[in-house]
Amino acid sequence: MRVMGIDPGLALMGYGVIESDGNRFRTIDYGVIDTPADMSEPDRLLLLWKELNVLLEKYKPDAVSVEELFFNKNVKTAISIGQARGVILLAVKNCGIPLYEYTPLQAKQAVVGYGRAEKKQIQLMVKTILNLSEIPKPDDAADALAIAITHINNAGMIYRTKNYT
Amino acid sequence: MRVMGIDPGLALMGYGVIESDGNRFRTIDYGVIDTPADMSEPDRLLLLWKELNVLLEKYKPDAVSVEELFFNKNVKTAISIGQARGVILLAVKNCGIPLYEYTPLQAKQAVVGYGRAEKKQIQLMVKTILNLSEIPKPDDAADALAIAITHINNAGMIYRTKNYT
Repeated sequence: MRVMGIDPGLALMGYGVIESDGNRFRTIDYGVIDTPADMSEPDRLLLLWKELNVLLEKYKPDAVSVEELFFNKNVKTAISIGQARGVILLAVKNCGIPLYEYTPLQAKQAVVGYGRAEKKQIQLMVKTILNLSEIPKPDDAADALAIAITHINNAGMIYRTKNYT
Repeated sequence: MRVMGIDPGLALMGYGVIESDGNRFRTIDYGVIDTPADMSEPDRLLLLWKELNVLLEKYKPDAVSVEELFFNKNVKTAISIGQARGVILLAVKNCGIPLYEYTPLQAKQAVVGYGRAEKKQIQLMVKTILNLSEIPKPDDAADALAIAITHINNAGMIYRTKNYT
């Protein structure tokens, strides 16, 4: 099973592609799509759409998992990030790929084992679970890998052992 | 010049298509795209995308004007509506159609002549300007026509006279 995790955003959208055979994880790729700040918002959405379609076509994931957004920030920011997230959900659905959404709480529980984990703990667990030589950079890519792991755990492909916690 | 105005939304997206030769307005069509509440949010976004593409292909507007969103409401609502708005902006840009955004304040100033106009006043002015037999329904369609008129006024095609105010 190949899963692409996505950490939504307009300036930076993190993605991480992993495979699991039910026992082990294999990291295929991770990174970010970035759109220039000096471009208009609609142009940035179009660029995000095009680049994400390239990734979906390249990696052909069996499923995509996307982080749900929670904000305390201002409503204007929420609309702007919502716009990027709408384009991301559309791209996945338009390719006919099954789509799953997880809250940050679900991701923390799936990756670290409890819901109040710090960002750094999550990143260390992502490194450990995926057997990487270092913590994936930038943070958006690490978050995306965490969301991909979350889906594989929730899909019942991998049962975390006590070793992980 | 043919302009499509859009009042963004996921449950109901209003649209209104008008033409202007610099002197008169002609109403081509108006209405709403609605997506069922019992459908998942990503499926609703995909449906909105498909139906909007049908409208853009059918009416081939020279420009599309979209209302900017302002909310006092909760951030969760803002993200949800932002997602729909992102899909709308993408559809227009993806068709290569010039896109313009106007605030509700700009729309009120363009249609009624002052920024604190009530919704009912705007709807009456839309009816008058477009020489319609009745106020366009639903509200989302009337708002979309107002945004289309706003762009034509701002594009300098029509100079409103004192008669309108």
